[in-house]
Amino acid sequence: MAGNVSILQIVGYQNSGKTTFIERLTEKLERLGVKAACLKHHGHGGEPDSFSEGKDSDRYLRAGAAVSGVEGAGVFQLTARGSWTLDKLISVYRLLSIDCLLIEGFKEAPYPKIVMVRHEEDHQLIEQLEGVRAVIYQRGEPPAPKPDVQSFHIEDPAAISFILHHLKEEGVCLNDLS
Amino acid sequence: MAGNVSILQIVGYQNSGKTTFIERLTEKLERLGVKAACLKHHGHGGEPDSFSEGKDSDRYLRAGAAVSGVEGAGVFQLTARGSWTLDKLISVYRLLSIDCLLIEGFKEAPYPKIVMVRHEEDHQLIEQLEGVRAVIYQRGEPPAPKPDVQSFHIEDPAAISFILHHLKEEGVCLNDLS
Repeated sequence: MAGNVSILQIVGYQNSGKTTFIERLTEKLERLGVKAACLKHHGHGGEPDSFSEGKDSDRYLRAGAAVSGVEGAGVFQLTARGSWTLDKLISVYRLLSIDCLLIEGFKEAPYPKIVMVRHEEDHQLIEQLEGVRAVIYQRGEPPAPKPDVQSFHIEDPAAISFILHHLKEEGVCLNDLS
Repeated sequence: MAGNVSILQIVGYQNSGKTTFIERLTEKLERLGVKAACLKHHGHGGEPDSFSEGKDSDRYLRAGAAVSGVEGAGVFQLTARGSWTLDKLISVYRLLSIDCLLIEGFKEAPYPKIVMVRHEEDHQLIEQLEGVRAVIYQRGEPPAPKPDVQSFHIEDPAAISFILHHLKEEGVCLNDLS
């Protein structure tokens, strides 16, 4: 059941455009027949909002269940409390039938990374982080070039193309990519 | 990471009291130091309601992601589309650090079962289903006795005690159970 899953991180400070960019990338991957999965780190935001109150799965959590899930019509929703590490989260994703996993956040992790920068002072991230493959900037000049790190403006379609080629190199099968 | 997980099904028709009973059982298990997990089959109800609209994880699903999750402060929420079977769902639960899994529904599955009956015509379930350990009835006379199947009224605390002893026999460690 578990296949090879290509992992790519999208990291950057708040308001650097991560969510919108991942959304755009996910749309493109879906059109290319890639089963993409996303994982967002709710960083310093505390617990994510719960499922709608009063739902059975929420009642079980309130009653003390460590894990509560519901499945219907091919949609599985799960809430699990625990001491989650990124590795443990990835092990759950590996069980699912997906081709690639886009991770928003967890910037200290060692996977290949796209860094999104908004302000000049964000450029330090490019030096600090492990596995940076490309930088996506929003305004002003592109960050100073670094060997093996490409820079793209956030509106440049080449940014998405670069990622698609990276995923293809990692073994992800893309229907229509020349 | 994956340990032994005791599986118990709670089955019965709509309004037979499954959810309230599982809630009560979960509370008791939590007090006894058991890490309980719940899984509800949304039967003929279609897809479960989505996470609050506009949340990032929901945006990724709408953009075409097969799977979308968020983790924060030790709470992991996942939505995964796919051709889910009970075995596949259980394989996800087995990855989590839980002691037992209470399954609401999936009554054709072969795991040990508690059958909840409300009307006399529900009693046929006891004959039809595999692995029935006990019957919980709400009104009128208890169902006709069957070897190795106990009957309890829904308000009888012995129903919960019976399940706790069953779980203990299956190897679940209960803090205070004599």
